[in-house]
Amino acid sequence: MTTILKLGGSVITEKDQPETVDEATLEQVVDAVVDAYEPGKFVVVHGGGSFGHHHAAKHGYSKTDGTRNATAVTDVHRAMSVLNDAVVDAFQARDVAAVPVSPLSVARRDAAATLSFPADGVETALDEGFLPVVQADPIVQEGAGATILSGDEIVVTLGESLGANRVGLCSTVPGVLDAEGNVIPEIDDFDEVASVLGESDSTDVTGGMAGKVQSLLALSAPAAIFDPAALGPFLRGEDVGTVVDG
Amino acid sequence: MTTILKLGGSVITEKDQPETVDEATLEQVVDAVVDAYEPGKFVVVHGGGSFGHHHAAKHGYSKTDGTRNATAVTDVHRAMSVLNDAVVDAFQARDVAAVPVSPLSVARRDAAATLSFPADGVETALDEGFLPVVQADPIVQEGAGATILSGDEIVVTLGESLGANRVGLCSTVPGVLDAEGNVIPEIDDFDEVASVLGESDSTDVTGGMAGKVQSLLALSAPAAIFDPAALGPFLRGEDVGTVVDG
Repeated sequence: MTTILKLGGSVITEKDQPETVDEATLEQVVDAVVDAYEPGKFVVVHGGGSFGHHHAAKHGYSKTDGTRNATAVTDVHRAMSVLNDAVVDAFQARDVAAVPVSPLSVARRDAAATLSFPADGVETALDEGFLPVVQADPIVQEGAGATILSGDEIVVTLGESLGANRVGLCSTVPGVLDAEGNVIPEIDDFDEVASVLGESDSTDVTGGMAGKVQSLLALSAPAAIFDPAALGPFLRGEDVGTVVDG
Repeated sequence: MTTILKLGGSVITEKDQPETVDEATLEQVVDAVVDAYEPGKFVVVHGGGSFGHHHAAKHGYSKTDGTRNATAVTDVHRAMSVLNDAVVDAFQARDVAAVPVSPLSVARRDAAATLSFPADGVETALDEGFLPVVQADPIVQEGAGATILSGDEIVVTLGESLGANRVGLCSTVPGVLDAEGNVIPEIDDFDEVASVLGESDSTDVTGGMAGKVQSLLALSAPAAIFDPAALGPFLRGEDVGTVVDG
């Protein structure tokens, strides 16, 4: 059983305060992971929240619109690395051998925007008993300079490469909600939910729930979307939130 | 013409003061590179100096002795990233689109300690007009946890992958010195110089001149070792320092 777990940027940061970790929630989710942790069997991915998004928005680039401004790249990357350090430190403080992974140094998109993320290093880290903690990050893209790689994209590509059979996205909401505000238990086709998902939040350069669901439908394994309260139950094997299964 | 240039850790840091950049020398060498700079044709690599070595020594790991202590990994990696930021900033201040590359996220050694460093990301960065600035860093190694990847090793492996035809190592000495203290103009076999190179400096976890020469002999292209005063002439195509040509 290999688990890949994404901690949403909005979950572990104060989204309305620039570059501020939500320490209480970070501790809560890290405690839940540590309770279920087996060395070599877990990968953690995290989004940007108030660390990455405002820098990317300020510099006018996103998952799809590139920049050739190196300062735009380093502003986002460095802010994301500060957040990554906080996540890594929280695990190390609980005696879990967490190490950082920065996609800027390993991933790229080709001219057709197809992502490649060689997973050999992450696999070796797992084999050696480390917990890879992978940040959302700028990456280079042929013909476009640099674009943003979202945590959701990392989950899909690494989850596939590693053959992860448990995929979870810990979000600020308890799942994908229908028009009445109830959690939709399962989604296996985007058209089923397109009407309720609508457009992405304009302040989120990496795409909101619609983009998340579309990405997860492309993954072989089913993926669950849930909130921090459901993380423990998810890791114990319970059905929680919304399961996206393309 | 693709140039790969290593800035020695001892050149750009105050080696006797922990985690202190030698600002004057850093400015001098960056100015020399900027004078010769062509986008897409340069890669800069740097060593650890007073940023990386003391952390690695404190935690008791090196190029060949591994650690499974994640804090040992992050202590060295974070210190190296601070130095990398200083180098990147110096280039960006001169309008060169420098971006960081951290081997921890991309390189690994297998169980036979054979290094792999996929160069696709660096190649895309070059194609997009960025200057990759690659730091010496801890990397994962099968069966050993993590070991140190030196700047010299990065020069050899990336120089080979990228087909670099101009390879330079900017060091604190004007070249490899013979028993009388004169620069040896060319070395094409280690045995020629083994008697004068002796042992590595014990405080340098990544190997001193002997290791440097041995690494460079494995590279297809000739590589020059020289001091900062000779960097400008080297980049203008002059013969400087010691040329190692295996």
